[in-house]
Amino acid sequence: MPLRQLPLRQFALLLIFGLCAALASAQSNRQDPLPSWNEGTVKSTIIKFVQQVSTEGSPYFVPAAERIATFDNDGTLWAEQPLYFQAIFAIDQVNEKAADHPQWRQEEPFKSAITGDIAGIMATGMEGLGKIIAASHANLTADEFRTSVRHWLASARHPQTDTLFTDLIYQPMLELLQYLRAHDFKTFIVSGGGIDFIRVFSEDTYGIPPEQVIGTTSEAKYEVINGIPTIVKTPNIILVDDKDGKPVGIYRHIGRRPIFAAGNSDGDKQMLEYTTLPHGSDDQTPRLGLIIHHTDAKREWAYDRQSDIGKLDKALDESRQHNWAVVNMKKDWRQVFPKAR
Amino acid sequence: MPLRQLPLRQFALLLIFGLCAALASAQSNRQDPLPSWNEGTVKSTIIKFVQQVSTEGSPYFVPAAERIATFDNDGTLWAEQPLYFQAIFAIDQVNEKAADHPQWRQEEPFKSAITGDIAGIMATGMEGLGKIIAASHANLTADEFRTSVRHWLASARHPQTDTLFTDLIYQPMLELLQYLRAHDFKTFIVSGGGIDFIRVFSEDTYGIPPEQVIGTTSEAKYEVINGIPTIVKTPNIILVDDKDGKPVGIYRHIGRRPIFAAGNSDGDKQMLEYTTLPHGSDDQTPRLGLIIHHTDAKREWAYDRQSDIGKLDKALDESRQHNWAVVNMKKDWRQVFPKAR
Repeated sequence: MPLRQLPLRQFALLLIFGLCAALASAQSNRQDPLPSWNEGTVKSTIIKFVQQVSTEGSPYFVPAAERIATFDNDGTLWAEQPLYFQAIFAIDQVNEKAADHPQWRQEEPFKSAITGDIAGIMATGMEGLGKIIAASHANLTADEFRTSVRHWLASARHPQTDTLFTDLIYQPMLELLQYLRAHDFKTFIVSGGGIDFIRVFSEDTYGIPPEQVIGTTSEAKYEVINGIPTIVKTPNIILVDDKDGKPVGIYRHIGRRPIFAAGNSDGDKQMLEYTTLPHGSDDQTPRLGLIIHHTDAKREWAYDRQSDIGKLDKALDESRQHNWAVVNMKKDWRQVFPKAR
Repeated sequence: MPLRQLPLRQFALLLIFGLCAALASAQSNRQDPLPSWNEGTVKSTIIKFVQQVSTEGSPYFVPAAERIATFDNDGTLWAEQPLYFQAIFAIDQVNEKAADHPQWRQEEPFKSAITGDIAGIMATGMEGLGKIIAASHANLTADEFRTSVRHWLASARHPQTDTLFTDLIYQPMLELLQYLRAHDFKTFIVSGGGIDFIRVFSEDTYGIPPEQVIGTTSEAKYEVINGIPTIVKTPNIILVDDKDGKPVGIYRHIGRRPIFAAGNSDGDKQMLEYTTLPHGSDDQTPRLGLIIHHTDAKREWAYDRQSDIGKLDKALDESRQHNWAVVNMKKDWRQVFPKAR
């Protein structure tokens, strides 16, 4: 039946419907899924990978259930200078509790924490940082800990930028998380930071629910206290989710290998290997590893091989051999942080 | 515009569309989401709970992200008599390896395992069972272990029913899992059994992906072996996911409290408490605990307070106090196992 025989109202409705469908389709073809990424090799590598694994009929198609993507947090999803933000939180907690622990004024690393001497803390090494974290994180109920982190995130200011710490997340990575999820990837955090710390803000900040956060984990015990079922955090660490610990954490929590991983330091090297190395000579699964290289001293921080925090050395050397895509932050990112709200 | 003024083809299309919509709607209203459950208090309690938490505008509405449901496995999703199926797997593995370990013929619990003396194994207690499981599960790569479980599940037969073990899953629980997921619940297994064992079949059998399986967990280490990134299972147990361990496992893997939990033994008591006890006097969140009571000696097995396997005693006593719904398998389940395929 020719269109002109349709009653006017039917014709108008059909026309509107058709226009809407055409517009929506054009929009979705034209819309850039990664607007904060500059055009270049890294961006096109990401888009090609996602299209390949998610297009049915593609020789590289991967079923949705297997589309697992893992992200480091510090230096990959948010900044980590001049010190891991969780360490700044821990130092603040030590200061809040210092009045109850007068001996801390004579005892490192607490002495440096109280006087705000970051170089002094760093001189005590990871052991010193561990003591500060244990003193501020353990023997609290899960609820108490969550409340103290939430309060800190809502009020504490970064020592250099004077912003909230959650303002220092990377806009391009938010877009990447969203892009992967729009293609049925399940996105996980796999961090050397504390699992309980990150879970407080991961859902609101990154859209990653607590059950998809893996991190350094301490023991916990269950008790009913005053009729309320309660989890109490205890100091014994059962997973250091860094280096070799990252593949172990992934195995323990996810139970299958990711096909995409992003990191920024040597602490992520094993996760990148575990994700991208073929599993035998007949493994044709497409896999992508991404390294964030902090090259932008003006908009963020520039550091790599010599840095105490987020040292990127061996993983950078290995990136060519394994075809890991290296993000040059200065060149590849149009925008670093989200626009002020 | 009156219908009779429509051109015939438009009218026919509209009619067909309208009929389809009406049929689909009637179908979805009439379709019983739990056809293997007999009508009664338990079934109506489940349906009322799910409707309350998932209906927007309901005073008991719970956002989808918080709709976490946890299920015990042995005795709750599949049978567990005359012995946990994983223990039968372990005994079979010990027998396969016995030729390499001649000393086992003199040493309990291996001696009983080799002669097929289940009473003898049970006499060695949980410690004995643990030795059998360690001997058959540890110091394998994750892939080797997965392959051996997969092979066993595809071929081994239950000593009494002569069926595959995966034929002994409960049809009403499959429907319940599906019903919850259709209302945006995320379904998890929280089992005293081994996390790595259950993950081999949970996705195909229950539609629960490996990352939503929590269980008793042993240490693992990461190595690159002949160029292949490899996880090796080691014997040290870091979570006994039973009793007090269940809330701890839930906290560690999920990071928030479920609002629904199902179990069948005293090993599930703490998970049921953790799930259903109000979190303070202002907590109005609806919560449901379900206990599977094995009462059907004819179609399945009947056991509770005196049983070595799946002992249900204190949790049954507490069920009234906490309003846990107790499933009388004989009365509440129209069908126990899936129809033969």
